[in-house]
Amino acid sequence: MAKVRVHNFHVSLDGYSAGETITLDRPMGGAEGMFAGFDGRFIDGVGGVDAPITLDRALTSTWGQGIGAEIMGRGKFGPQTGEWTDDEWRGWWGDAPPFGTPVVVLSHHRREPLHFDNGTSFHFLDATPKDALAFAEDLAGGQDIRIGGGPSTVRQFLAAGLIDFMHLITVPVTLGGGVSMWEGLAGVQERFTVESTTSASGLTHHFWNRVTTGSA
Amino acid sequence: MAKVRVHNFHVSLDGYSAGETITLDRPMGGAEGMFAGFDGRFIDGVGGVDAPITLDRALTSTWGQGIGAEIMGRGKFGPQTGEWTDDEWRGWWGDAPPFGTPVVVLSHHRREPLHFDNGTSFHFLDATPKDALAFAEDLAGGQDIRIGGGPSTVRQFLAAGLIDFMHLITVPVTLGGGVSMWEGLAGVQERFTVESTTSASGLTHHFWNRVTTGSA
Repeated sequence: MAKVRVHNFHVSLDGYSAGETITLDRPMGGAEGMFAGFDGRFIDGVGGVDAPITLDRALTSTWGQGIGAEIMGRGKFGPQTGEWTDDEWRGWWGDAPPFGTPVVVLSHHRREPLHFDNGTSFHFLDATPKDALAFAEDLAGGQDIRIGGGPSTVRQFLAAGLIDFMHLITVPVTLGGGVSMWEGLAGVQERFTVESTTSASGLTHHFWNRVTTGSA
Repeated sequence: MAKVRVHNFHVSLDGYSAGETITLDRPMGGAEGMFAGFDGRFIDGVGGVDAPITLDRALTSTWGQGIGAEIMGRGKFGPQTGEWTDDEWRGWWGDAPPFGTPVVVLSHHRREPLHFDNGTSFHFLDATPKDALAFAEDLAGGQDIRIGGGPSTVRQFLAAGLIDFMHLITVPVTLGGGVSMWEGLAGVQERFTVESTTSASGLTHHFWNRVTTGSA
């Protein structure tokens, strides 16, 4: 049965996962410091990279395994708001976005899909989390769906009870403000089993698995 | 640069990784109890399996990432010794061995290669660790090489200084005897950085990365 998964979601000690305002220069809205130690090469898995295979790297590299589609909020795709007036904008990632699968971008404003040679495509959709998930499942070919963030998007899917698995990473920094990971989610942990471990880098990795109820 | 990697190598508290004598009924030579909690579905990665994604599962599932070939000892391929008199034996795994890549089987006795539809092939070779590695690299297409065991094979590659990465798993059992993981390897840790973490299951995961020296 396909799962809905969140991977590598960084949270500060004071519960923020991004800065307040995303701009072209600050794609994390000022929270870039939280990712200073984050090795983006996790996208390649543990093979083919000339760096040690640390615990952090092994855990973050499961990001793409068995994923057939991602759902992301508009702020992860770009800094624009309102109507799509700049069709030249094709995301932050250049000609080879690292997803390699269809990606559903949640946006209230219509735009035609974008397709890239490496298997990535972006599909713009104005929908509730539940309907967006059904749309993504049609694109995922039976594989799992990743909820790619930002934090507001993850929060909405959590609130709707649609997340099966989350890999959260607590980073030992305080931001003092930004977009909260946890606002409106008091007690959400009761719907999950939570396993945690620390690594030599000072990160804490949290594995949340939804408690299965009934006959499932 | 391609790496030589060991994954998911289980070691008892008293340092054994297999029982003494492998038979058809006891492929681990009597040490099967050490693997009682081991979920073999790690082969599929973290996706597509209807089980929680635990820390153990995430770590063990990096097994196949970026691997282009495996090298294994004869005892991992089958219980026979001496000349290959039973060409009907095609390994323990049926028609779809889980490797999905070329596999070099170290054996003093000649045998023709075996090919399977899922991309697995077995190549029988009488060679030193260094020469076996060169042979495997030709088969691996630039990807990493996994040293698949058993423990004697891993020990030989360690002693020859050929291992770049090892994921060892200490299992909280005592076997009282068997094939040692560490015999003849006193001080081998000095050539590696070692990072360790525990999981809720009682396992300890160890990540060994070879210390890079010189200008590399």
